Amino acid sequence: MTKDSTSPWRRKLHDIIYEADTPAGKLFDVVLLILILASIALVMLESVKSIDARFHDYFEIGEWIITIFFTLEYFARIVTIKKPSTYIFSFYGLIDFFSTIPQYLAFFFIGSNALLTVRALRLLRVFRILKITRYVGESNKLSRALKDSRAKISIFLFAVLILCIIAGTIMYMVEGEESGFTSIPVSVYWCIVTLTTVGFGDIAPVTPLGQFIAALIMILGYGIIAVPTGIVSAEYAKDMEPSKVTIDGEDYVHMNTQCCQNCNAKKHRDDAEFCHKCGNSLDRDF
Amino acid sequence: MTKDSTSPWRRKLHDIIYEADTPAGKLFDVVLLILILASIALVMLESVKSIDARFHDYFEIGEWIITIFFTLEYFARIVTIKKPSTYIFSFYGLIDFFSTIPQYLAFFFIGSNALLTVRALRLLRVFRILKITRYVGESNKLSRALKDSRAKISIFLFAVLILCIIAGTIMYMVEGEESGFTSIPVSVYWCIVTLTTVGFGDIAPVTPLGQFIAALIMILGYGIIAVPTGIVSAEYAKDMEPSKVTIDGEDYVHMNTQCCQNCNAKKHRDDAEFCHKCGNSLDRDF
Amino acid sequence: MTKDSTSPWRRKLHDIIYEADTPAGKLFDVVLLILILASIALVMLESVKSIDARFHDYFEIGEWIITIFFTLEYFARIVTIKKPSTYIFSFYGLIDFFSTIPQYLAFFFIGSNALLTVRALRLLRVFRILKITRYVGESNKLSRALKDSRAKISIFLFAVLILCIIAGTIMYMVEGEESGFTSIPVSVYWCIVTLTTVGFGDIAPVTPLGQFIAALIMILGYGIIAVPTGIVSAEYAKDMEPSKVTIDGEDYVHMNTQCCQNCNAKKHRDDAEFCHKCGNSLDRDF
Amino acid sequence: MTKDSTSPWRRKLHDIIYEADTPAGKLFDVVLLILILASIALVMLESVKSIDARFHDYFEIGEWIITIFFTLEYFARIVTIKKPSTYIFSFYGLIDFFSTIPQYLAFFFIGSNALLTVRALRLLRVFRILKITRYVGESNKLSRALKDSRAKISIFLFAVLILCIIAGTIMYMVEGEESGFTSIPVSVYWCIVTLTTVGFGDIAPVTPLGQFIAALIMILGYGIIAVPTGIVSAEYAKDMEPSKVTIDGEDYVHMNTQCCQNCNAKKHRDDAEFCHKCGNSLDRDF
Repeated sequence: MTKDSTSPWRRKLHDIIYEADTPAGKLFDVVLLILILASIALVMLESVKSIDARFHDYFEIGEWIITIFFTLEYFARIVTIKKPSTYIFSFYGLIDFFSTIPQYLAFFFIGSNALLTVRALRLLRVFRILKITRYVGESNKLSRALKDSRAKISIFLFAVLILCIIAGTIMYMVEGEESGFTSIPVSVYWCIVTLTTVGFGDIAPVTPLGQFIAALIMILGYGIIAVPTGIVSAEYAKDMEPSKVTIDGEDYVHMNTQCCQNCNAKKHRDDAEFCHKCGNSLDRDF
Repeated sequence: MTKDSTSPWRRKLHDIIYEADTPAGKLFDVVLLILILASIALVMLESVKSIDARFHDYFEIGEWIITIFFTLEYFARIVTIKKPSTYIFSFYGLIDFFSTIPQYLAFFFIGSNALLTVRALRLLRVFRILKITRYVGESNKLSRALKDSRAKISIFLFAVLILCIIAGTIMYMVEGEESGFTSIPVSVYWCIVTLTTVGFGDIAPVTPLGQFIAALIMILGYGIIAVPTGIVSAEYAKDMEPSKVTIDGEDYVHMNTQCCQNCNAKKHRDDAEFCHKCGNSLDRDF
Repeated sequence: MTKDSTSPWRRKLHDIIYEADTPAGKLFDVVLLILILASIALVMLESVKSIDARFHDYFEIGEWIITIFFTLEYFARIVTIKKPSTYIFSFYGLIDFFSTIPQYLAFFFIGSNALLTVRALRLLRVFRILKITRYVGESNKLSRALKDSRAKISIFLFAVLILCIIAGTIMYMVEGEESGFTSIPVSVYWCIVTLTTVGFGDIAPVTPLGQFIAALIMILGYGIIAVPTGIVSAEYAKDMEPSKVTIDGEDYVHMNTQCCQNCNAKKHRDDAEFCHKCGNSLDRDF
Repeated sequence: MTKDSTSPWRRKLHDIIYEADTPAGKLFDVVLLILILASIALVMLESVKSIDARFHDYFEIGEWIITIFFTLEYFARIVTIKKPSTYIFSFYGLIDFFSTIPQYLAFFFIGSNALLTVRALRLLRVFRILKITRYVGESNKLSRALKDSRAKISIFLFAVLILCIIAGTIMYMVEGEESGFTSIPVSVYWCIVTLTTVGFGDIAPVTPLGQFIAALIMILGYGIIAVPTGIVSAEYAKDMEPSKVTIDGEDYVHMNTQCCQNCNAKKHRDDAEFCHKCGNSLDRDF
């Protein structure tokens, strides 16, 4: 078994941060999830004027606690990985960086107008939740069913869009500007609102002919909503059956959340000892 | 056969109140359902100012009739059970208590300001309907299908929520406060209204970019509504097939609504003579 | 073969009016359908003030033509049947009578205030379309799938109603009268509007807590819309398969629209010579 | 092999324009799609007053570039086909003609009032997208599933329409004109808006009875939305299975987009040498 040169504490930390199969790794993920949710709640509450006026100082303290934890986590992620650039320039690496930096920038440039724009970057933290969700077992099955029917649903939504452009153009001709259909894009927007059965009511047809066409669009929308449902149903049902057979046939092997310290490749076999991408050892020392 | 010390009339009353397999037990449940529905109708009608002004006295009389029946039922439930605390501190025991007491409190403290708050407790009676519904045969199959797909639907709704937080944050940035998107929570609320295709129209995007993003959210909502449907369809279809096989295989035994007088354990076999939980006799004397 | 006493032209007329298997019977149904649709269009257009003002006389002439045809049809139906009371007091018999009589009443009591109320009865003609639809082949399959899942859908809709009563009561407590939730029935109405994703927007929550609960209701409504769909899908799929098998097995015999002249019993076997209900001859003389 | 008299370059051009199996044919289709989308974007943006005011000249130049390309394409289509009338009087031929001509008319009759009406004809270009979509593989499966269930969905939508007429008539009687239900057609329109769960909110019931009936309509709409979904699901699932079997059974042969130069008949076998309709040679010379 080839032994690589990284110190044991680094490897331990790597397993805790990047993987979720050990108790310590699970605990880390739970703490991280709570802090992310707390930071999102903070940003959301700060945007409510009346609440911000009363609890501004507490929010500020909360922001600093979260920012410091996120900073430590950011550096831990860089230190424990062999090729830091793999993480730093990944989607989540950039999200982590740009959602942590604003608090420091705001500290150094207090009172500037740019402050507000910079603070808005904290909203990027919302995307961090996605990092956690991939560990939830059930979501894999769901996302696979969605992925399988993605092509068909895309075609369907494209067809819906063309339909909306055609119907929107007709409605623009029929209703005209005095009914609120001020331009074709607005008219197409109204068509999407109607066909998807959302129906805000900010724009509504007033001429008899317009209402007749609107009724046709609605009935069409009510009828074709069945199409994506039928696709996903069939796809999902198909997905449920063969999985039993193939697992019996031992064709599939369970993958865990191990993550190579060298190249950050994910999803290794439970009994994997070397990374399937770069051949680096996956050894754990605890 | 072990005989327990409770008097025969108590046991009879217990079977009538807690079970639904005997004619008397069924009659009791039907009367109870009618009274619960009547009491809900009373509370609803009393909340309509114009109706309450004209029929206030009749409503008051109706309230007293229902309250007295519910009081008798409450005491009967306590008396006929061996360990009254099992019932008193159960969910339905607390609902029964707190939905009956307001009428008496209102009688003793007439004219006080607290009256209105106290009377509001009567609304808890709504939850009593749930007590009846579990006897309806078809609902079991439905609730089982729902329970089976609960995990998947929860994950799906959680994903929808995250999507709404992300989209709501973006809409808050794009539309700003003058369009009605006054804070991120309000913006997320709007997103939920839109993605679920409810579309109140109290808040609606006005900028072209906002309308474009709104259109994307709507089309997305229209497309992903297929996912929960697909899940329940597949789950329900799966549920329908094996049930036939297993019932043929005699692996399942029909359960009735018998309810142990000692520990209140529910769902015993039709031929059960002793409680499967505490060993108490389930003997009926009529 | 027993010969009954009715004259040949009566029997012919009976077959034309009550059945749809002969060319003459089909033609009669098509003419009837066109006249019913025309009469509905007339009533609808008459309700539009601006159109009625311009074409009132033409509408009046049209009304008389249709009324006279419907009167002839009504008497033909009575004359050709052996027991006229079977038809007269049936659902369609009453609809036919009460939707034809207003025109005559209006003729004899011109200028009276009761005129408007009486004319409204003409709207009953809408229900006559249902008489035609039962001949459409595809609709039988659809209505059977609906009938099979009726019990489950009823339970589901009842559960939705209870949910709406509970949620409506909570919203009434939370939002109060100044937000438009003026009484519990109105609040329950709002809940139904929201849960079914209709969302008029005439009433909308304004308090943060109310909006939060509203969001929960919407997400719930978005999630549980899958339940009826799943039920009908499974029921419909089940319906499609065994039908093939049983038809092969010769267990089913095709029924036509023959209709007994004596007791008006419907759906006889293609090769039936006598009514399966009263034993009357079904002989056709052409 | 019979050789027909058309010159080789004509045949080549015919294959490029009318078919999509060769690299040149595919490239032509992609360029055409981009130009169609660009022309639609142009028409849409021109309808927005504020944008048109700023970029009017650029839009004019863009219009001329697209118009010239479309003119060349139109003549190429006429020249390369043996019987030009087959194309000219086809649906797409007419669309192509009437969506290209307005730019020239506007050039020769500048300043006339008819200009606006004529320019509106350019909107017909929207229908040209449909010409492209038929080449997208996935869409065939989708449209076949839709076509198979078209009869059932039509019956369903017809039933929904009758329901809306009945419910609309009742709502007109109950709510009356002061609630916005000014005529039966408007009332039916409102019913369609409600039953399809669109819910604009421009018209909403205000009387308790009207709200009660509206609630019934909504719950009905929520319940029966399951029907089209169930139909398409079952149809789509059915569609997925036998396709495998029949392709194995060699009953089906792959068709390509070859298009006869003589009669414009489409969808020939991959190995076809002569048109299956007119017997003309399908030979390609490159």
